Amino acid sequence: VLCPGQGTRDHPPAQAALRDRLLSTVVSCFKRHGAAAIDTPVLELRETLMGKYGEDTKLIYELQDQGGELLALRYDLTVPFARYLAMNKVTNMKRYHVAKVYRRDNPATTRGRYREFYQCDFDIAGQFDPMIPDAECLKIVHEILSDLQLGDFVIKVNDRRILNGVLAACGVPESKLIPACSTVDKLDKVPWEEVRSEMVGEKGLSPEAADCIGEYVQLHGGLDLIERLLQDPKLSQNKLAKEGLGDMKLLFEYLTLFGITEKVSFDLSLARGLDYYTGVIFEAVLLHQENEHVEEPVSVGSVAGGGRYDGLVGMFDPKGRKVPCVGVSIGIERIFSILEQRLEASGEKLRTTETQVLVVTPQKHLLATRLKLISELWDAGIKAEMLYKKDPKLLKQLQYCEDTGIPLAAIVGEQELADGVVKLRDVATRQEVRM
Amino acid sequence: VLCPGQGTRDHPPAQAALRDRLLSTVVSCFKRHGAAAIDTPVLELRETLMGKYGEDTKLIYELQDQGGELLALRYDLTVPFARYLAMNKVTNMKRYHVAKVYRRDNPATTRGRYREFYQCDFDIAGQFDPMIPDAECLKIVHEILSDLQLGDFVIKVNDRRILNGVLAACGVPESKLIPACSTVDKLDKVPWEEVRSEMVGEKGLSPEAADCIGEYVQLHGGLDLIERLLQDPKLSQNKLAKEGLGDMKLLFEYLTLFGITEKVSFDLSLARGLDYYTGVIFEAVLLHQENEHVEEPVSVGSVAGGGRYDGLVGMFDPKGRKVPCVGVSIGIERIFSILEQRLEASGEKLRTTETQVLVVTPQKHLLATRLKLISELWDAGIKAEMLYKKDPKLLKQLQYCEDTGIPLAAIVGEQELADGVVKLRDVATRQEVRM
Repeated sequence: VLCPGQGTRDHPPAQAALRDRLLSTVVSCFKRHGAAAIDTPVLELRETLMGKYGEDTKLIYELQDQGGELLALRYDLTVPFARYLAMNKVTNMKRYHVAKVYRRDNPATTRGRYREFYQCDFDIAGQFDPMIPDAECLKIVHEILSDLQLGDFVIKVNDRRILNGVLAACGVPESKLIPACSTVDKLDKVPWEEVRSEMVGEKGLSPEAADCIGEYVQLHGGLDLIERLLQDPKLSQNKLAKEGLGDMKLLFEYLTLFGITEKVSFDLSLARGLDYYTGVIFEAVLLHQENEHVEEPVSVGSVAGGGRYDGLVGMFDPKGRKVPCVGVSIGIERIFSILEQRLEASGEKLRTTETQVLVVTPQKHLLATRLKLISELWDAGIKAEMLYKKDPKLLKQLQYCEDTGIPLAAIVGEQELADGVVKLRDVATRQEVRM
Repeated sequence: VLCPGQGTRDHPPAQAALRDRLLSTVVSCFKRHGAAAIDTPVLELRETLMGKYGEDTKLIYELQDQGGELLALRYDLTVPFARYLAMNKVTNMKRYHVAKVYRRDNPATTRGRYREFYQCDFDIAGQFDPMIPDAECLKIVHEILSDLQLGDFVIKVNDRRILNGVLAACGVPESKLIPACSTVDKLDKVPWEEVRSEMVGEKGLSPEAADCIGEYVQLHGGLDLIERLLQDPKLSQNKLAKEGLGDMKLLFEYLTLFGITEKVSFDLSLARGLDYYTGVIFEAVLLHQENEHVEEPVSVGSVAGGGRYDGLVGMFDPKGRKVPCVGVSIGIERIFSILEQRLEASGEKLRTTETQVLVVTPQKHLLATRLKLISELWDAGIKAEMLYKKDPKLLKQLQYCEDTGIPLAAIVGEQELADGVVKLRDVATRQEVRM
């Protein structure tokens, strides 16, 4: 595959058309939930992005110092949104933003991982009653993945407070919370034994602490699991964990009213990498269905994720005023890869233009006629094309219709000119009417 | 005005909605002319951009060398398009591209000049009969400026071959063609006397050459002027100028068939800055109409421009194979500034969301009812919102409708629950129906 730079790509028309279709499904859902659009620059001040992404800060693209401000390319749409809220003193907003972000990551283009890629974000900012906006974010993920007919999926949910509570309850000291957390995050890719040995080896946790963590983070379930953990002697003594579990219970009640609990799994191993989450976190994964004989469905990776970040806006406010936020980001590139492969397999050809009619002349010396007619069609709002040759062959013109899927040909020859009519031909059926 | 970085800006919802409206008018026109969409990365290899923009190369944003390829931010959409065609060996294409480009220019934000801004490009690549695609580009400019109801405008047209022919016929040596050309380009901003003294002083032309140039570049007109210049003893001896004038005549014949010559002016002073143009060039300017007592309409600057660049694609092909191209770029930011000011003056408030109905409960303890109803509405594809409070006051809910322009409220209180109905209220007329 030719690519302009490592980890970037061009979208030729067929791909651009598919992506437009995909993005419009996502944006329709965001609008259905009453979100307004905003736009922020690709170029952010370097200091805006620093200290927001943990270990991934090294993946930020920095611009050369050519005089003036030090700039960087945005890494996601969440930090710019928080910067926007703080800078404009907005305390209440429901917005979506579909735009490109940049990461100096190792590209894995077959799996849809690029250095320049689209994100589709929906976020709710404001002080509200607990878990109502959070539940809506999960509903949105459910709607989009259903609308796109991507096959079976599960939305894993956890809460940073529960995870930190587990770690604390297992005796992990404050200083090791973040490294322990990022090790737990690997559980979706490697088995528990490996995670355990990293905890004890690299991260320096005691074997007892690691085993204790292992008992919790391998749990997943629904309301029943939440109830059980609320009774758990160790966890129930931890204030944060208790709060998190209480909210998780409320969340599941709301998700029950939305009728989507079947696809939602409370999963204690979910950690998510970013620093800024403070409460509920979630991630949607597609379940592999191609080989139906496999007993356990295999995850093909995350296609949506998000969570609550109540502290981020305050980091940009001179007085540290907080604006609670929760949001979701749709992993459009991975979904695009799946749809692209599926389209290829189906052999279906997506039209790349919307042209309704080709203006055709069957004899020579009729360029002026074509130009006059097409101009009238354009002025009437009709999507029309013509070949850019003075005297194109009739067959070539009709072939162009077939190749590009133009349904109609408006034919004006000498006879039609004399009669003052246009012959309209249905390209597929070859039926013609004079008008 | 708060801005995230110098020369960049956030688009809050009201502006984003206005821009969406504007872009969709432009894209509709591009689709009406049968263009397909493509997308190329914001990040291009530095070497791709070098040597394409003349003096303006210094305005390119370069990324820091963080290992790997040397990258830069695209300066326009034309060079990436040419790179795309050459890289994919495409010799025939009609495409549009709406995306952001980057220039380290002195921002002049009140006049709509930013460092990060949208471009809307339409280009036709391929070997065709002369001036047919070129005429379509001018038709597109005419349609878009008419559709947007921006007031009176004129599209200035010239041809690089005519301009070079004039310079050569006036005795400008080959080596001074480009500097002389960029001096002519200033004629739309400063009077001829200043341009002349720059030519003689800074650029070292003879006073005779400058006076000769002056006689030509102050001319503008239509077919009559073209005919006159075709008879001009000096110009008609210059091969390039003759070719250019012949094509200009053809162009005006096609524009006559399109019925748009009234807004088109053949203007020998038009030069356009970029290196890559080889044939027809054009630029649309709005004519100031605010003060109707002023006799001469005053230009408020260029809102669209473009031209033919037959050599650019070949610069990216290892074997130098050429693909002739002609295209137009709509100066969306300047148009946006005008529309924004006009909207502000009118006092009209643009809706920023498309929500059709707010789900409302008039008593306490009805959150579950609201969640259930709104979920049904979303699943039925209806754009619906609710307040994220457990027990919001009825007045607050209705006020939210008025503030955000939501036309309907779906009210479910204890009575409606008991009767198994929903009360639908028209927010403007306060009429209610039970259903």
